[in-house]
Amino acid sequence: MKAAIISIGNELLLGKTINTNMAYLGSELARLGVPAEYAVTIRDDPGAISKALGEVWNKFDIVITTGGLGPTEDDLTKAAIADFYGKELHFDEEVWQHVQSLFAKRNMHTPELNRCQAMVPDGFVPLKNERGTAPGLYYRDANKLFFALQGVPLEMRYIFENHILPIITDTVPDVKPIIQKTVHTHGVSESRLAELYKLDDLPSDVSLAWLPQTGRVDMRFYGTDEQRIEEAICLAGEKISEYIWSVDEETPASALLIALHSRGYTISLAESCTGGWVSKLITDVPGASVSYNGGVVTYSNELKHSLIGVQSSTLMENGAVSEECALEMVSGIKILTKSSHAISVTGIAGPDGGSAEKVVGTVYFGFNAEDHYWSSKQIFTGDRDSIRLKAAEFAILELLKSLQGRCT
Amino acid sequence: MKAAIISIGNELLLGKTINTNMAYLGSELARLGVPAEYAVTIRDDPGAISKALGEVWNKFDIVITTGGLGPTEDDLTKAAIADFYGKELHFDEEVWQHVQSLFAKRNMHTPELNRCQAMVPDGFVPLKNERGTAPGLYYRDANKLFFALQGVPLEMRYIFENHILPIITDTVPDVKPIIQKTVHTHGVSESRLAELYKLDDLPSDVSLAWLPQTGRVDMRFYGTDEQRIEEAICLAGEKISEYIWSVDEETPASALLIALHSRGYTISLAESCTGGWVSKLITDVPGASVSYNGGVVTYSNELKHSLIGVQSSTLMENGAVSEECALEMVSGIKILTKSSHAISVTGIAGPDGGSAEKVVGTVYFGFNAEDHYWSSKQIFTGDRDSIRLKAAEFAILELLKSLQGRCT
Repeated sequence: MKAAIISIGNELLLGKTINTNMAYLGSELARLGVPAEYAVTIRDDPGAISKALGEVWNKFDIVITTGGLGPTEDDLTKAAIADFYGKELHFDEEVWQHVQSLFAKRNMHTPELNRCQAMVPDGFVPLKNERGTAPGLYYRDANKLFFALQGVPLEMRYIFENHILPIITDTVPDVKPIIQKTVHTHGVSESRLAELYKLDDLPSDVSLAWLPQTGRVDMRFYGTDEQRIEEAICLAGEKISEYIWSVDEETPASALLIALHSRGYTISLAESCTGGWVSKLITDVPGASVSYNGGVVTYSNELKHSLIGVQSSTLMENGAVSEECALEMVSGIKILTKSSHAISVTGIAGPDGGSAEKVVGTVYFGFNAEDHYWSSKQIFTGDRDSIRLKAAEFAILELLKSLQGRCT
Repeated sequence: MKAAIISIGNELLLGKTINTNMAYLGSELARLGVPAEYAVTIRDDPGAISKALGEVWNKFDIVITTGGLGPTEDDLTKAAIADFYGKELHFDEEVWQHVQSLFAKRNMHTPELNRCQAMVPDGFVPLKNERGTAPGLYYRDANKLFFALQGVPLEMRYIFENHILPIITDTVPDVKPIIQKTVHTHGVSESRLAELYKLDDLPSDVSLAWLPQTGRVDMRFYGTDEQRIEEAICLAGEKISEYIWSVDEETPASALLIALHSRGYTISLAESCTGGWVSKLITDVPGASVSYNGGVVTYSNELKHSLIGVQSSTLMENGAVSEECALEMVSGIKILTKSSHAISVTGIAGPDGGSAEKVVGTVYFGFNAEDHYWSSKQIFTGDRDSIRLKAAEFAILELLKSLQGRCT
């Protein structure tokens, strides 16, 4: 069985909204063993909607649309869907009660505009939305399933998890879910990895996707046979072990937190150019507080001095973007927080602030692991955003590497 | 003229990678006056690639593919493209020299695998890639343009900006670019806004898209006549002024920084549950340092006490997630940094840590504007990520509201 996704919305085509819904649905459908094999993004336009439905409804077992169910008048999706399936729309009293109750909870009257959200095509089942006013829609024709979902990610996910997931599981009990495991590498190019780990080595029923990220490469192994995937990963462990920072940990930060926590360590941060991004990545992980004490964002030179004791002479003579400053920052935050490990980051994220000596992208790191201090200088390329992200991830991956005892 | 985008990659359909390339291309094409009207995502599969090309090549003036140009063996894109256009592949010596020079720069030998990147279909122009090894590809048939781009965002953007943009500008000099202006609102529902600002009020040649974000609603006006768009926005200013935090500022943080800087103010932060996210949002903005001094992430109670002077009795009696703690945090960071304005955030981001009294999503904020201190309690819904994002944006938008003198 296979699925298709139709994303509806001018804002997606105009690039004002990034289509995270498609990634969410793709991932969930793969997990259920009904992978999406086709996805299309179209305008908020009845003609485009029925054309897209015409293209996929006969070819796929499950079709899911997102977008176009809001209360405002640009939402024509429901009429186009009803029309495609040759149905009339009727007013659903129960949906209307629910919409009104949501507004009543907030002590607001229900705008007249929301009435359209209670219209449901004949033969369709409205899927109750506890996160917003618009219901999802479900239609079944023999073994083919159709779902219409909201565009707002929070609502879309709620409907998928609470309504669609059980329906799909009931309908397709025998399929084998696709199993995915990811080997995360750092500090090596995609083509060098591919030389070390040849596709000939791969079991025939396991697929491998190379996923270059900003500053690192992920290798994703997937298939339906877990045993064979484990074999493939085991081989990767033999051939490219020095570059692997984790198998399956989702982020560098979650891998670092596990490495710290399992050894009873704690960490604190002193950030300048990354401006809190390292801290944000670490606290993205639920339960980060078991190992993370906190830190400072000393964005101004004054705070570098007054808050974590970087010497004025260092700032004057070497500048804030220097090895000396990075090392004083890391020892300063260590003293302030009494953590066993610490990281500092100071650099030039751009677009301004670079010089011939210190170009935009120059970043100094200070690291501490118990009694051991060391520094690193890196020059990252790209725009402000990617320089900052690369610096934040490098800080985390470098400390992780030392905890794992890898030397590349 | 109109464009279509073909995104190639199993990882996109499996939801392991979010398709940011499509948003980037959509936005750039709209700006050039050749909006994307259709986008499709397909598997890394020659059959799927030629089928997708068959669907769009006759209907659109510009077709762009992304993905499938890397050095590893899962990349079959180029062969499928050559095949669709009835061309043979030839070895391009100049591209090969470039690939080799990139590896030489890093003192590495060029892996044999990279040779395939120098294969170019006859009649196609390779587009030089200074950010990686794979060149882009360009093909023209009468007035129809075809481009094949990398999947790695940094490389894709480099090729678009440096090669494709001038080609499109040369080819379509007379089209009117689509002008977009966004009215950003906060603290009001989409349907309430739509009652206050009726579509009947909209000039006929201006379109309006309602874009609910996490915790706020954007209204995007677009069309080709700037004057008419200004009229539409002016009317919004009359009807919903109390909810508008900005027109066209890209982010709450950039709007706040402008509001602070224009008044000669400075700001510092004390974050707990947002863990540096507010600081990250502020330092995302180039030049943030003119108004932003820095701050602390006091994730542990110990640091709340030792670093910014929250009293132990407050932590014991009221807890870290309390109005009292938020106010002590904001006055503590203010004393430490001597900024004119300050924000503190402390709450329960979940998934654990909630109680009957203080549910997950409960967040207290402390605000300071010169001599004036105030607090706010909010209960946000959603998962850890969206609670943290809503809290970070609320902190910024609330201080911005007070600077703008709006009371809703």
